[in-house]
Amino acid sequence: MKSYKIAVIPGDGTGPEVIREGIKVLDAACQKYGVKLEYIHYDFGGARYLKTGELLPASALEELRKFDAIFLGAIGHPDVKPGILEKAILLTIRFELDQYINLRPVKLYPNVYTPIKDKGPQEIDFVIIRENTGSIYTGIGGTVAKGTPDEVTTQVMLYTRKMVERCERYAYQYTQKRNKRNTLTLAHKTNVLTECGDLWMRVHEEVGKEYPNIKHDYANVDAVTMWMIKNPEWFDVIVTENMFGDIITDLGAMIQGGMGIAAGGNINPEGVSMFEPIGGSAPKYTGKNMINPLAAICSGGMMMETLGEERVARAIDMAVHTALESGKIVSLAAGQMGMGTAEVGDLVASLV
Amino acid sequence: MKSYKIAVIPGDGTGPEVIREGIKVLDAACQKYGVKLEYIHYDFGGARYLKTGELLPASALEELRKFDAIFLGAIGHPDVKPGILEKAILLTIRFELDQYINLRPVKLYPNVYTPIKDKGPQEIDFVIIRENTGSIYTGIGGTVAKGTPDEVTTQVMLYTRKMVERCERYAYQYTQKRNKRNTLTLAHKTNVLTECGDLWMRVHEEVGKEYPNIKHDYANVDAVTMWMIKNPEWFDVIVTENMFGDIITDLGAMIQGGMGIAAGGNINPEGVSMFEPIGGSAPKYTGKNMINPLAAICSGGMMMETLGEERVARAIDMAVHTALESGKIVSLAAGQMGMGTAEVGDLVASLV
Ligand SMILES: CC(C)[C@H](C(=O)O)[C@@H](O)C(=O)O
Ligand SMILES: CC(C)[C@H](C(=O)O)[C@@H](O)C(=O)O
Repeated sequence: MKSYKIAVIPGDGTGPEVIREGIKVLDAACQKYGVKLEYIHYDFGGARYLKTGELLPASALEELRKFDAIFLGAIGHPDVKPGILEKAILLTIRFELDQYINLRPVKLYPNVYTPIKDKGPQEIDFVIIRENTGSIYTGIGGTVAKGTPDEVTTQVMLYTRKMVERCERYAYQYTQKRNKRNTLTLAHKTNVLTECGDLWMRVHEEVGKEYPNIKHDYANVDAVTMWMIKNPEWFDVIVTENMFGDIITDLGAMIQGGMGIAAGGNINPEGVSMFEPIGGSAPKYTGKNMINPLAAICSGGMMMETLGEERVARAIDMAVHTALESGKIVSLAAGQMGMGTAEVGDLVASLV
Repeated sequence: MKSYKIAVIPGDGTGPEVIREGIKVLDAACQKYGVKLEYIHYDFGGARYLKTGELLPASALEELRKFDAIFLGAIGHPDVKPGILEKAILLTIRFELDQYINLRPVKLYPNVYTPIKDKGPQEIDFVIIRENTGSIYTGIGGTVAKGTPDEVTTQVMLYTRKMVERCERYAYQYTQKRNKRNTLTLAHKTNVLTECGDLWMRVHEEVGKEYPNIKHDYANVDAVTMWMIKNPEWFDVIVTENMFGDIITDLGAMIQGGMGIAAGGNINPEGVSMFEPIGGSAPKYTGKNMINPLAAICSGGMMMETLGEERVARAIDMAVHTALESGKIVSLAAGQMGMGTAEVGDLVASLV
């Protein structure tokens, strides 16, 4: 029996509730295909920070390196200043474990409400590959004369050839494996970002030569946001740098039905990856059995796919599909699902 | 009789065609209210560059400083590498004339198709104020070891207190004058951009104290893109930094009906401002009488408003409104308007 060690970080707010349902579905699907998951829980997040002052101890990071994958709920607490937990926990794990790919499928399941007109599951089905370690997320920059009229602040977008190349290579391989329209679009702003943009463009074309059966093209990121809502069917796979990726993946989440369904993977193809529903900790719904666990459930599926357990992944994806197709879940919005968090988990688990 | 000197840069592709209609409508409206516009045309753009190698001579920049305003068509030529014309002409004028505000109303006129569901002119009516001289647009940054495996590239987002403060102050004044929902939302990414974001947040709050009747709030730029398509009615005025503004103003253009209607102003409140339809030069429609001139017409209206000719501005806005309400213009898309570029101009001009 194939077995994997999973570090679980339920985190803040509704994180634990959605993770519980994610695990419920993972267990049901894994059992069916003879796969075993062994979970170890970690309580990093706002509550622990407020109690102990501890964010993510170095020893914990060392422990995390030994798992097969990490399953994360949500990080963010109303009593902690924005930025602290995200930087010290979420971004630190991404950077320290070198999870250089942020994988965000934008897929509309049946019966799911999208705010854009005239588009259904046929038209909304693409993948965004966001570079996850570079750009303005490196934290380089500073402030002089803070608080005075002479204050100057900077943040540095940084990319190395290596960062760009490994991301582009992953993106081409992914596009090939996906085998849908075999088109990889680089979203950037090369007409303004003549340094980083030029590097991305050159690598996009160079690596593209190794994949002659994959078409590659380019679009300005500002135009991409327009097309995502007007012609989402134009896209197969989009690759982009970290900051732009942050923005367009959220827009993508909205057109696929919102935070209730948007799953993300922080992937180190040669190391330990972390999977998370991309919504926040939604404090106002905490403990109310009202939050939608589908994004966490789908993240679990993505985790299994990345671990190479494609049958388990497919079973979870099909179960989500069937659950939504049944029409029993009347809306993806928290508190409006027509059933509770646990019941959505039960429904999907019963269908794997 | 009040008279203004306008520098006209029709530019490339369909630029001259839309500018012609813009001027037609400006003249009709100005005549009605006893205002005189005197135009001097400049041929900067791709065609001149290809013929003479000249982009924007320093002497021209000095001439431009003497006008009351600049009316621009479009810059961009299929035979010129992206970036060259935009940087040397468009961005140079913005920077050298210190046009520190990019003003982008996002307003859905009647009968205009928006790709988002369940929203009409009531819900889609907000304004984006994009800072227009700082951020990653400063061009600071560089590349080492170009073309080698060791290549490193950087681009620097830079903001000074002065840049942020004058933009925020303009935004508060604009929100006050607009007097709609009296709410100014800062869109940024303060949880990651702890240097520039912190400066923006502090100034947003400090300047806000001077406008006690204006509510101010904050949203992450990634979330803003979601709400723009799900709940555009939540916004009154959004203020944001240059790079984020570039992205969300394009998304805004799409929800108000696309490039055919999206007008922009590059404003120096103490100097010379430039007004432009924000679409590109659309080379494939050049000379075909197919492009939509409404964005240029609306930009002309915005120019008159900025010059203090509010009656002229209102007349143009009302004429566009009435023309669209009549249903005679069947679509805003190029080639699908049910009439030609010149006929749209005639229609609007007849209604001022
Ligand atoms: C919470 C925040 C730091 C994070 C990011 O900006 O990457 C989030 O928005 C995301 O997209 O995962
Ligand atoms: C053409 C380009 C340089 C420009 C920008 O990025 O500002 C355009 O996208 C805009 O929004 O006016």
